[in-house]
Amino acid sequence: MLGIDPGLTRCGVGVVDVARDRSATLVHVGAVRSGSELPIGERLAVIAAGLRSVLAAHRPDVVAVERVFAQQNRATVMGTAQASGVALLLAAEHGLPAATHTPSEVKAAITGYGSADKLQVQTMVARVLRLDALPQPADAADALAIALCHAWRRGSATPGASGALTPAQRAWADAERAAARR
Amino acid sequence: MLGIDPGLTRCGVGVVDVARDRSATLVHVGAVRSGSELPIGERLAVIAAGLRSVLAAHRPDVVAVERVFAQQNRATVMGTAQASGVALLLAAEHGLPAATHTPSEVKAAITGYGSADKLQVQTMVARVLRLDALPQPADAADALAIALCHAWRRGSATPGASGALTPAQRAWADAERAAARR
Repeated sequence: MLGIDPGLTRCGVGVVDVARDRSATLVHVGAVRSGSELPIGERLAVIAAGLRSVLAAHRPDVVAVERVFAQQNRATVMGTAQASGVALLLAAEHGLPAATHTPSEVKAAITGYGSADKLQVQTMVARVLRLDALPQPADAADALAIALCHAWRRGSATPGASGALTPAQRAWADAERAAARR
Repeated sequence: MLGIDPGLTRCGVGVVDVARDRSATLVHVGAVRSGSELPIGERLAVIAAGLRSVLAAHRPDVVAVERVFAQQNRATVMGTAQASGVALLLAAEHGLPAATHTPSEVKAAITGYGSADKLQVQTMVARVLRLDALPQPADAADALAIALCHAWRRGSATPGASGALTPAQRAWADAERAAARR
């Protein structure tokens, strides 16, 4: 599962391997950067080249991209939308299904709370993937969160999964119990 | 000169040949369409394939793309931005310089008036290219207008061109004289 947090200056990419029991393992995390001194077309080409090399190295079977809204930060939203277009194009050209999720869907899936702050999301991503530190940079953590969100939402659509806690809720509850024990 | 009026449902493309004296000839006009029933990634792949075939068939040396603003029609602006990202990416991957122009820059270059309506733009495009009818569909006419706009703006930056009427102003004045003679 490849998650992409689109952006022109920094495009976060995160690859996770999600098992049948929904446990997840970190495969790759990073960010593709393009310099603001380049013309827009060349910036998109740099992003495309970086995404292609992640696709070639890790061969995901699904891609999930954070959805961009016109209401978000005006100054950069068009560049973000253009980068997301490039990400979705590359997924299709690699024959991969691509999903989009809104930021609040991602936060809700990861923390159980659609208005969670960045630190809560990073903390849960680190815990779910059993990392020793918070994933860096922040947009790379977001890319991992998008990948996990899509894997879990897809998984929770299968019969028999309803009624139970979501993996995020379970992990969060485990974390709270662990903290209480200290 | 390839002009692109980006869009997901219909992406207008227009190719014009602009001579040193700024006279322009129609080479190709059309629209690449993608069905709204397809997932977004596949729609962008359809647009990309159509643009690639225009690039291969006509080998332009410059690409001009209409600039998209977040303030425009909310429902479709993200798709338009994603399509423009794909257009700019393809230009860069073909080694071509790509420029963007705002709708009012295009209207001003073509009609001499930044708030011109669609019919005025289409009329001037048809006249400048010596067409017997208005170019159809409308977004294909817009793509031709973008191409002409970029050719003329680029041309008018050369020394010695200042002071004279712009080609649009000259063509418009000619058209008015011709209409007065009838």
